[in-house]
Amino acid sequence: MKGTASLQADERAVLAANSAFYEALESLDLVRMDAVWLHEDWVQCLHPGWELLQGWEHVQESWASIFRSTVQQRVSISRPRACIMGDTAWVSCVEHVTSTFEAEFTTARVETLNIFVRRGGQWRMVHHHTTPVSDRISTEPSHTVQ
Amino acid sequence: MKGTASLQADERAVLAANSAFYEALESLDLVRMDAVWLHEDWVQCLHPGWELLQGWEHVQESWASIFRSTVQQRVSISRPRACIMGDTAWVSCVEHVTSTFEAEFTTARVETLNIFVRRGGQWRMVHHHTTPVSDRISTEPSHTVQ
Repeated sequence: MKGTASLQADERAVLAANSAFYEALESLDLVRMDAVWLHEDWVQCLHPGWELLQGWEHVQESWASIFRSTVQQRVSISRPRACIMGDTAWVSCVEHVTSTFEAEFTTARVETLNIFVRRGGQWRMVHHHTTPVSDRISTEPSHTVQ
Repeated sequence: MKGTASLQADERAVLAANSAFYEALESLDLVRMDAVWLHEDWVQCLHPGWELLQGWEHVQESWASIFRSTVQQRVSISRPRACIMGDTAWVSCVEHVTSTFEAEFTTARVETLNIFVRRGGQWRMVHHHTTPVSDRISTEPSHTVQ
């Protein structure tokens, strides 16, 4: 049985891995996103509005596509809760996402579940599952002061 | 390292636990749903359209409420994929749900992620996370032949 201090250290490490994912998401930098994930053929990702993707090759392609079409992305998270079971951990959190594309921006609140496994002492993402929980607001750019 | 036969046995057991969850869902029997879940204060459940629930007490109340208001529920699943890591496992699958209430029925396709942990040799659900992926069709009862 692990001691409390060790469990707290594990929780900090898992939440840091979760934060690193969101920093990669904001950076729109595929190299940073590569570093977050485990590169195996069974990892899975469900982006909002997409079909489930399986395998790092497809997941990586999806991030490349999203990063190419996004001008800027701001993400904050609330209510992160980490559960750790040996070398597996999952974090549920709410994402607050504002994405800017060429002609519009969208905001979304997304209930998310991220699963990580520990390999070589590093927590790597193996599953990202999103559930939009509020309607997406799509707004044309405006130069009018309202 | 576990052998292939042992891994296959684990996968069968995890998929059986996943099936038992959907059988409990169809049965509208809270005793069967109780048997599927781990009864601890950190388990979590995201029903379609609900806020995330945490703790077995709240999760159990939600199933009781859903079962009370539902006349009949039919659920089939497709594309179940199990990942097993020690005593933790997760299954992603698509639920095809038809629910009958007093005055209407709804159908939904739901991308779902279920997490299980093994306790005393039994796989118990600890997280149920749903993402509706097609619009809900709500139909008033009709006696008209169309």
